Amino acid sequence: MQQSDDSGAPSFNPLVVLELISDTKEEAIAWLLSRIRTPQQAGGAGLLMEQLGPGVSAEHKDNPNLFLVGASWERLLSGAEDVGLFKEYSDGSMRGFTCTNKHNFKDFQGDGDGFLSMAECQYIIKHELETLRAKDETHVPGYSNAKLYPGKSIIRRLLSKGILIQMFPLHHKEELKRLSFSWYKKFKLSLQPLDEIRHYYGEGQALYFGFLEYFTFALVPMALFGVPYYMFDWEDYDKYVAFAVFNVVWCTIILELWKRSSATLAYHWGTLSRKKAFEEPRPGFHGVLGYNPVTDREEPLYPNAKRQLRIYLVSLPFVLLCLYLSLYVMMIYFQMEGWALSVHDQDPSFWTGVLLYIPSIIYAVVIEAMNLVYRYAAEFLTEWENHRLESSYQNHLVLKVLVFNFFNCFASLFYIAFVMQDMVLLSQSLATLLITSQILNQFMEAFLPYWLQRRRNKKMIRKVQKKRTPGDKELPLAEQVRLEADMSTYLGTFDDYLELFLLFGYVSLFSCVYPLAAVLVVLNNVTEVYSDAFKMCHVFKRPFADPAANIGVWQLAFETMSVIAVVTNCALIGMSPQVKAYFPESETQLILWTVAIEHGLLAFKFILTFLIPDVPKHIQIKLARLEFESLEALKKKKMLEGTEFRKSVQ
Amino acid sequence: MQQSDDSGAPSFNPLVVLELISDTKEEAIAWLLSRIRTPQQAGGAGLLMEQLGPGVSAEHKDNPNLFLVGASWERLLSGAEDVGLFKEYSDGSMRGFTCTNKHNFKDFQGDGDGFLSMAECQYIIKHELETLRAKDETHVPGYSNAKLYPGKSIIRRLLSKGILIQMFPLHHKEELKRLSFSWYKKFKLSLQPLDEIRHYYGEGQALYFGFLEYFTFALVPMALFGVPYYMFDWEDYDKYVAFAVFNVVWCTIILELWKRSSATLAYHWGTLSRKKAFEEPRPGFHGVLGYNPVTDREEPLYPNAKRQLRIYLVSLPFVLLCLYLSLYVMMIYFQMEGWALSVHDQDPSFWTGVLLYIPSIIYAVVIEAMNLVYRYAAEFLTEWENHRLESSYQNHLVLKVLVFNFFNCFASLFYIAFVMQDMVLLSQSLATLLITSQILNQFMEAFLPYWLQRRRNKKMIRKVQKKRTPGDKELPLAEQVRLEADMSTYLGTFDDYLELFLLFGYVSLFSCVYPLAAVLVVLNNVTEVYSDAFKMCHVFKRPFADPAANIGVWQLAFETMSVIAVVTNCALIGMSPQVKAYFPESETQLILWTVAIEHGLLAFKFILTFLIPDVPKHIQIKLARLEFESLEALKKKKMLEGTEFRKSVQ
Repeated sequence: MQQSDDSGAPSFNPLVVLELISDTKEEAIAWLLSRIRTPQQAGGAGLLMEQLGPGVSAEHKDNPNLFLVGASWERLLSGAEDVGLFKEYSDGSMRGFTCTNKHNFKDFQGDGDGFLSMAECQYIIKHELETLRAKDETHVPGYSNAKLYPGKSIIRRLLSKGILIQMFPLHHKEELKRLSFSWYKKFKLSLQPLDEIRHYYGEGQALYFGFLEYFTFALVPMALFGVPYYMFDWEDYDKYVAFAVFNVVWCTIILELWKRSSATLAYHWGTLSRKKAFEEPRPGFHGVLGYNPVTDREEPLYPNAKRQLRIYLVSLPFVLLCLYLSLYVMMIYFQMEGWALSVHDQDPSFWTGVLLYIPSIIYAVVIEAMNLVYRYAAEFLTEWENHRLESSYQNHLVLKVLVFNFFNCFASLFYIAFVMQDMVLLSQSLATLLITSQILNQFMEAFLPYWLQRRRNKKMIRKVQKKRTPGDKELPLAEQVRLEADMSTYLGTFDDYLELFLLFGYVSLFSCVYPLAAVLVVLNNVTEVYSDAFKMCHVFKRPFADPAANIGVWQLAFETMSVIAVVTNCALIGMSPQVKAYFPESETQLILWTVAIEHGLLAFKFILTFLIPDVPKHIQIKLARLEFESLEALKKKKMLEGTEFRKSVQ
Repeated sequence: MQQSDDSGAPSFNPLVVLELISDTKEEAIAWLLSRIRTPQQAGGAGLLMEQLGPGVSAEHKDNPNLFLVGASWERLLSGAEDVGLFKEYSDGSMRGFTCTNKHNFKDFQGDGDGFLSMAECQYIIKHELETLRAKDETHVPGYSNAKLYPGKSIIRRLLSKGILIQMFPLHHKEELKRLSFSWYKKFKLSLQPLDEIRHYYGEGQALYFGFLEYFTFALVPMALFGVPYYMFDWEDYDKYVAFAVFNVVWCTIILELWKRSSATLAYHWGTLSRKKAFEEPRPGFHGVLGYNPVTDREEPLYPNAKRQLRIYLVSLPFVLLCLYLSLYVMMIYFQMEGWALSVHDQDPSFWTGVLLYIPSIIYAVVIEAMNLVYRYAAEFLTEWENHRLESSYQNHLVLKVLVFNFFNCFASLFYIAFVMQDMVLLSQSLATLLITSQILNQFMEAFLPYWLQRRRNKKMIRKVQKKRTPGDKELPLAEQVRLEADMSTYLGTFDDYLELFLLFGYVSLFSCVYPLAAVLVVLNNVTEVYSDAFKMCHVFKRPFADPAANIGVWQLAFETMSVIAVVTNCALIGMSPQVKAYFPESETQLILWTVAIEHGLLAFKFILTFLIPDVPKHIQIKLARLEFESLEALKKKKMLEGTEFRKSVQ
């Protein structure tokens, strides 16, 4: 890692940066430093911590309160045991790491240098900082309003009071260069380097990229199926039955299979059988001080009934209102559409032909804008609902955002398909929506942040070059840290998954009327891999690793979408002229058959979910083996204790 | 417990009886006795075991090889730790029992006498006997064909080779008298004594009776709703919409609430958080000797692919064939029905009026007979599929039996409702089916075994009285054991649950056309409680306790039925003249609305399943607290070890 003799370089490997506000009181800094440096046995965190020097390009407006945190190898290994890290054992299975047993782990050599990846070290330091608890302090020294009580996490309080601006892990120039080369710089047909991504960014990120890749490959057969439809003009809108049937089977199977590959990945990354640590309240959670019934610790409590009232009396009506607004906007779009059509009909020319596409494009832009605004409102509301746990906050936020985005993006398509029953307009609308939202997304998500970051980089390099010999392109540590501190914060995989969710919706719901949708989504995903990889490496601060075992609530969201897709595709099949021709006399018969087949397919889907095991057999065996061994060890231990007890009695 | 100075009375509390075949070889008996009596440290079971004396009425045809098994209190307590028993701690929470910690458990007094219930002691002895494993024996002494290999359960081998006829726990006359008095002898309106049932029979039994009681109470509102319908002749077959709507809501909610009450019961009985022990292969499982990939023990292996072939190529076609047969029988029933109707139409008289009911009654009897025969076939097939685990065997058996019984019992009703659309016939058929099957069931299940058992009892008492003074009504132990050994074996709760499942089906699917169904089912359930209680206490051998935490696969079965009920009731609503009147012109509109509402209800049902937590809040807190404490204890232990390590280094 960056070790140079520059001023500002610490005497240890810096892993994590803490940035306090520039006018933090001296006593608070001294207190925090001592609490973090004190060994664990004395109630501290036992970490190494130094202030970052001013650097070459020091200006008086630079924040002096940047601190580098690191730890000795010994400390990191004991931390790995604390967080319950799973590592590969000498027999090839994954086991919880313990210090007493360390030499039996596969890659453990010497004193353990290199055993943990940098991302794991940073995760451990984050965990140790966050679980550093107040003892008998009543408040942060120098800040009488920043109250503390025994057992309260110090870092969380400093964050919620705004004294600690941010805490972020440092990039590693060398590793990053290697990763970005194998990831997106060499133009290749090979798969993404998931293990390397996991090594550098942690399991949560790697699972996202794994899912993105999986989803793209899963779309390839559909795309191949779709191209001839388009090329040879097969799409006369009544040949889509084959496509709809294919859709129904496809979306059921790929999600089941993904669960299995995700379990395989998570097993090899050691997160599958890892136990969740006890969840702390979120930093923003507030309430009246009381005793937690589970831990008996003093902490803020907030009555659940009050939260439920906020959810059902404020959030729910607000979401419904937004849905209504979205419907209203949709109706305006249809009026515009009708107006454009009438103009084109009266006086058909090239320009009125272009005009036909204008309402769809405007509507697509408005949809994106509404999604964006709604997103902020949903975050505000969910924050206000005052959830105690981060996981509960996330679930409520995801639910709010998903329902609205689904409605906003697909309502017009459902209206065209089932109320207007106009398949030509549906295909046209779908194409416009899909293409516009993809272009907007790529712009907002990759190009804009990249451009902003490039400006910042150039400024910093120019600043440094003023004071240095020109040829020296590597930034010194102090500048590098300040540069990273200014980078945008990566807000997690939420938006990326949401985008995939909507794309999955476009493909699984309506691609039978616009077979090129799968091709467009595949193209989008390929560029998405590159732009996401690029933004992860060069636009954002490095995020902390997140030891995820699966894609969490998104699996449920995608499965719900696939159920809706079965219903939608069955309805589309029932409406097709081809199928209608089989029931020339009775529409009732047609509908009854459609409904019966739909129920059969849904039942089949649920049975399939039961029949396909979520975890592949060979991993099930490995997990069972581990459990069996620990049971046997426990039994043996008990036997030994029994013998000792008997001996001591005799 | 029965301690007398009679011959045949052992010097310890007898708990479990082992019956070997009467011509067992001496060396096998001697070897088994020594293995069971040898202390655990020397690789035995460490239990007490004695041969049962000949008794007063000894005849030469009596089997001499009956053995009584018991254990010292100390041994039982260490066994309780082995099986992972949960008991109430001094702070009111439920915790895993450990011998080192025993004095902190609430009811632990003195040396632990009375701390464990007799059912628990018997369960422990069963567990210890079943986990008594062969060491270096290659076969059972005297039986060279009864092969053994290291780690093989001895008792299971003796059972599968037919040397051990049976192993059963003894009744306790005093406790049984008390239980039966508070359960069914005093005529009362109070609830069943679930805690006492659990104390005597274990958790599996108590949960069945708890579910039976819950189900009965859940039916009461529906029964109350149904009586006026019948009394005031409201049932003109188009007023049933209200009833169908009620049905849909009712069957969703009661199953969700049952999960919560079941969790509450299981928590207080200590089975909710108890970990499942490692499952052994079933006694009947056979295959080529190999190494188990999980345990590395030598044991029979049977390729999964071969089992799948048997399931999909033999069992599945067989089940389908049976379903076809059942349909065929149904068509014959309809022909008979038509013939009876034509006879009645030609020459209506009282006798032809009675004749109208005859086909239904015959059909009901045939259904019961087919269910019975199919049951044996299903057991044979599932046995032949050669499942390794008892749980897998049970699941496949339940699935086979459920699908056929559902089809067999309900196919005719579905046919009448949706193909013939004859609501009068439906109501009449339902009533006949329900009443006939109830009468048959009560007869087969309670009266017949009772009558057989009474004959056996009388014979034994007469035999004893020959040799004794008349007034002495208590049987001596040796006779009591022989009497119990001859009683029928209770085959578990399978048939009882199956009966409830079919009753639940009658009520939730079609009760809207025959509102008295709920009343009949309530009446049946009340008598069922009494007859089941009676047969448990006096007809069957005492069963071993089964530490269940819930009703297992039956919860899933009932939930599936409730989904089918939603679909069926929606269809019935859509077919009612009342609803049809709203759509006088378009049948298509009617169907579309019905389907839409049905989908909405199904979605609502799934959301409800998510929203209602399966475990009540106060028990969630207790469980979380326990987990938190064990995490904290682990952390503290690690800290101490760390300090010690450091001290020893210094």
